Amino acid sequence: MKSHQVKFDQSSEAVQVPTGTLLSEAARLAGIEITQPCGGQGRCGRCAVQVQSGAVRRRSALRLSRDDIEAGFALACQSVVEGDLQVYVPPQEKIERRLTTDLTALEVRVPEGYSYERDQTIRRVRLSLSPPSMEDQTDDLSRLLSGLRQQTPAWRQEGFKNISVPLNLLRKLGDVLRMSDWQVTAIVSLQQASAQEVEIERLIDVLPGHVPDDEPLWGLAIDVGTTTVTAWLVDLVSGQVKAQVSEYNGQIARGEDVISRIVYASKEGGGQELRGMVLDTIHALIDTACKRVMGLMGTEEGFNRCQIVKATIAGNSTMIHLLLGIPAATIRLAPFVTGANHIPLLTAQEIDLNIHPEALVDCLPGVASYVGADITAGVLSSGMDDTTRVTLFMDVGTNGEIVLGSREWLVTCACSAGPAFEGAGVQHGMRATRGAIEEVWINASTSEPTCRVIGGGKPRGLCGSGLISLLAEMFMTGIVDKRGNLNLHLPTERVRDGEHGLEYVVAWAAETETGQDIAITHVDIDNLLRAKGAIYAGYSVLSDSVGVPMELIEQMLIGGSFGKYINVEKAVQIGLLPDLPWERFQFLGNTSVRGAYHALLSQESRQRIREIASRMTYIELSADNSFYEAFMSALFLPHTEMSRFPSVEAALNEITPV
Amino acid sequence: MKSHQVKFDQSSEAVQVPTGTLLSEAARLAGIEITQPCGGQGRCGRCAVQVQSGAVRRRSALRLSRDDIEAGFALACQSVVEGDLQVYVPPQEKIERRLTTDLTALEVRVPEGYSYERDQTIRRVRLSLSPPSMEDQTDDLSRLLSGLRQQTPAWRQEGFKNISVPLNLLRKLGDVLRMSDWQVTAIVSLQQASAQEVEIERLIDVLPGHVPDDEPLWGLAIDVGTTTVTAWLVDLVSGQVKAQVSEYNGQIARGEDVISRIVYASKEGGGQELRGMVLDTIHALIDTACKRVMGLMGTEEGFNRCQIVKATIAGNSTMIHLLLGIPAATIRLAPFVTGANHIPLLTAQEIDLNIHPEALVDCLPGVASYVGADITAGVLSSGMDDTTRVTLFMDVGTNGEIVLGSREWLVTCACSAGPAFEGAGVQHGMRATRGAIEEVWINASTSEPTCRVIGGGKPRGLCGSGLISLLAEMFMTGIVDKRGNLNLHLPTERVRDGEHGLEYVVAWAAETETGQDIAITHVDIDNLLRAKGAIYAGYSVLSDSVGVPMELIEQMLIGGSFGKYINVEKAVQIGLLPDLPWERFQFLGNTSVRGAYHALLSQESRQRIREIASRMTYIELSADNSFYEAFMSALFLPHTEMSRFPSVEAALNEITPV
Repeated sequence: MKSHQVKFDQSSEAVQVPTGTLLSEAARLAGIEITQPCGGQGRCGRCAVQVQSGAVRRRSALRLSRDDIEAGFALACQSVVEGDLQVYVPPQEKIERRLTTDLTALEVRVPEGYSYERDQTIRRVRLSLSPPSMEDQTDDLSRLLSGLRQQTPAWRQEGFKNISVPLNLLRKLGDVLRMSDWQVTAIVSLQQASAQEVEIERLIDVLPGHVPDDEPLWGLAIDVGTTTVTAWLVDLVSGQVKAQVSEYNGQIARGEDVISRIVYASKEGGGQELRGMVLDTIHALIDTACKRVMGLMGTEEGFNRCQIVKATIAGNSTMIHLLLGIPAATIRLAPFVTGANHIPLLTAQEIDLNIHPEALVDCLPGVASYVGADITAGVLSSGMDDTTRVTLFMDVGTNGEIVLGSREWLVTCACSAGPAFEGAGVQHGMRATRGAIEEVWINASTSEPTCRVIGGGKPRGLCGSGLISLLAEMFMTGIVDKRGNLNLHLPTERVRDGEHGLEYVVAWAAETETGQDIAITHVDIDNLLRAKGAIYAGYSVLSDSVGVPMELIEQMLIGGSFGKYINVEKAVQIGLLPDLPWERFQFLGNTSVRGAYHALLSQESRQRIREIASRMTYIELSADNSFYEAFMSALFLPHTEMSRFPSVEAALNEITPV
Repeated sequence: MKSHQVKFDQSSEAVQVPTGTLLSEAARLAGIEITQPCGGQGRCGRCAVQVQSGAVRRRSALRLSRDDIEAGFALACQSVVEGDLQVYVPPQEKIERRLTTDLTALEVRVPEGYSYERDQTIRRVRLSLSPPSMEDQTDDLSRLLSGLRQQTPAWRQEGFKNISVPLNLLRKLGDVLRMSDWQVTAIVSLQQASAQEVEIERLIDVLPGHVPDDEPLWGLAIDVGTTTVTAWLVDLVSGQVKAQVSEYNGQIARGEDVISRIVYASKEGGGQELRGMVLDTIHALIDTACKRVMGLMGTEEGFNRCQIVKATIAGNSTMIHLLLGIPAATIRLAPFVTGANHIPLLTAQEIDLNIHPEALVDCLPGVASYVGADITAGVLSSGMDDTTRVTLFMDVGTNGEIVLGSREWLVTCACSAGPAFEGAGVQHGMRATRGAIEEVWINASTSEPTCRVIGGGKPRGLCGSGLISLLAEMFMTGIVDKRGNLNLHLPTERVRDGEHGLEYVVAWAAETETGQDIAITHVDIDNLLRAKGAIYAGYSVLSDSVGVPMELIEQMLIGGSFGKYINVEKAVQIGLLPDLPWERFQFLGNTSVRGAYHALLSQESRQRIREIASRMTYIELSADNSFYEAFMSALFLPHTEMSRFPSVEAALNEITPV
């Protein structure tokens, strides 16, 4: 096969690739990072590069204008090399968003009554062994194990009978025993209560000397989100969270939503690349967390990642599959099944997680392709599985997962809301970061808006909460009608027929950082209606399926970082949230990592997550005819049946008396 | 630090090493193999190389003559580089010996009544799964496991409840299920009967399609001997041994006995090197065995090492430690303890064994540093743990391990016989290979010998059985007295005061391949007396310890390849074997690999080995005063108390009437 030289201007050397190589692959070989938010499907257009000389063949040029193509632009993920090339890669869009850090994080309260000696599965046992002699030639391992059996600590009813020992520990055991003069501390993982999953007693490590009871024993709770990865470093003895860290999931550069990631992972080498990316993210988080803890302890030495002896991981099913290297392709295609909802207990070294190699890694169980461990963990930490009150729990991100139920029953579904609320698929949408309009008020008489911008400077675009706020205000002030149609007859220049059709201008060019008007278009409004309609239809199907009318929902719990910035009133006004008294709403933040934290601390919580996963009845909306109907009815502001939103009706009547 | 160029004449390029580097290390870096039979202790002298120019410092020059040193000879393991060197490496001694091959191996009978469906822990289960649909979105793993639970085969009383699944299997499961249209065969490892060790039910693999019942399922029984490694490739369904292969343990180049190996392993990187060497040996054996089986099956395809799904390993404690990379140093030093006598169940990938990565590797249990799994396996295959007859079992190699007992009780000890019977430490000793004198007859009147030589050509030296035969004949014909002293007053030139002191010439220079006289010296005889004395003292201590006089031993079982070539009569005459009626002796060959084979086939046999290991009472001879006494009494031909050897006494009376 013929090969060609491809030279990227950021790279000093050209790469040699065969005819037909994707430009994105050539870039990877040249060590150049090209962002592919849609996972290389050729849909987002953000991987466009400029071919300055040479022949490429464009399989698709979606999102490129004729001018772009004439100027040599080509989608790196859709264009193949057909000759020697000189390529210019435009500056890549920076990923920015508000991340939870120690500074912004709320202090986490240790669960009431947490007792290391009752709840924790990882324990330390101090052992004083007698050294071998010619009279007692017992081998090192048997000596250790019989020490464990005989020197049973107070919290242990019976000795350790059936404990597995990793080979690596055997390899170092003799040295540790001798260098510490046969005074050691064993770290053991107890058998878990449930017989459902295979979890045997296991020796994790043997440390020289006697570790005092009050010295921390480290565990890690991780939430692998599609956008953000969060880790909490926890002292398992006190139960305290000693560091909370978050970072963007490094996989973002290969797809913004789970579908794009799955598409990318299904390409040759793609799965491994994504696995490496999220591991890199987690490892960076662990390093940061360890440094923080070292700072807290006021010591530079004496702490490193290998002291972390247990980890629990929550995340949606796709994220868990990609992290573990399990193919995720079946998640995306009907009939939408995962490789495994219940992942066996793993060790850190099995999945290349840089903590103690024998640390047990517990990936929490999911329910379905789109209701993963992040939701079971969220249900646990929300407490809805243990309340008598009918509760609606939702976690809105790129997808919206909804759970309805109580101590008695739980039903769940997932609706593909699309990324509109994350600012994607909207003309001037952006993530909730500096320069994003996060709240809008519109004067009903003049149709003039007032905006609050994150960071306080000039606006650059609209983030999710800004879009909700804007749409609600436009509806309440009559700029759009209940179908979402813009009213051209208002005495304002802000509603106009622009380049992209009808639109409402939120900020004039002179007021913005970009020097361009920021507007919301008719198409944007349609996208937002579809997104909120899908979620509302989800509630409807769930509440219909169990025969519990929406107004009987006693509490509405909202998880996910998105929830934190939602203005309930506005979200109700557009029909994204059901019309319930405000006191029934609660915003819980990252319920997923919190659930992982609970599971990390206590066997009983872990067992509860297992029960939640098996108790939850999953309703597949794409197989449910009633969903389509409910969705169509919800494509209105706030809904085709205004009676479902009495408070909105009342407010409308106040503003615009009939 | 200064560095120097070292150029070996076999190698085209010089290596650069710092001052103080061992010559053996420099050779290793240059890719040149230097045999170190004593493990680099500077004792055997076989790693001598000739420094043709440049400065070395000799830490020790044991076994080198003044002439050698003047000619530039230096021990590679004891000499360090102090300048640029030019080094000549003399041709290395070839390791040759009789190896068991398919051609020489006896056909192995499948244990009577072996039933795959009752005895085997590895089973195949054919599953027909229904594919997922929108109505049944069960994840792949749960679908497989519930198939396993529901489609329980006839041999299974209850379904599989608690089965562990390796991550690698999860990673491929989805593809296998789909490409085989949901018709698969699961390979599972059942829970073992004993609760003593942690062995849980485990899914090993899932194969596409339905594998027929009569298709072989492959297992491997391995004996890792200090000198020889043996592997049997077994069809677990029929129980038949399909290939028997043996090869020298590659570690021989780094030490001939276990002590030398331990010394070598304790050096930096030595343990890893030895581990790699024995793995290479095992892998070569597996390849050979697989090729033989392919030949048998008449197919070039359809069989490879990854189809081997279970392995049992026997071997002495040092060999097992070195294979697994567990430090063995404590085995060598008082109080002589192992890292572990009971090794946890491992997977092939954990120990880098090139068979199915998830194959379970079961290292059989040992009893003590010098009574390892080779002996527990040997006891099993000898059947002595299940007989009412008082039995003495011995396995003589470099060390002699002895077990005395019956169904009721078992005592064991190990005596360091030294390598004399393997031809080492004896002036004209050699291994039992072509050119070795293996049997000698001496005319009592003329003192003239007649020899049988392996291969039938001219002799090159004396192997173990030859030495035993020679010594016995010399004693019976009065050439040596009961103290082992040579009789200079016989009318023969064969007894003379030679270069190395008094000696008896077995073959004159003109008759030998080397063109030199082959003789046995006074020093050689002392060494042989010490070796046989140690073993006899072992029997004595064991029989005294349980109060069973030697003559009450009802059967005498001899394992090990050495045993195969021993002439019982001669061995009794020198007092190596006890004086019992010949019909009580049985030679069993490699009892270790046979025991591993039994354990591979049947849970019950495996359980018996476990019981043997825990039932055997180990007597540490070096801590036992009576051993020294017994040893001193045994340093005679055949023994200081002639009454212990009535048959020898009678024979002597016939030959030389008092």
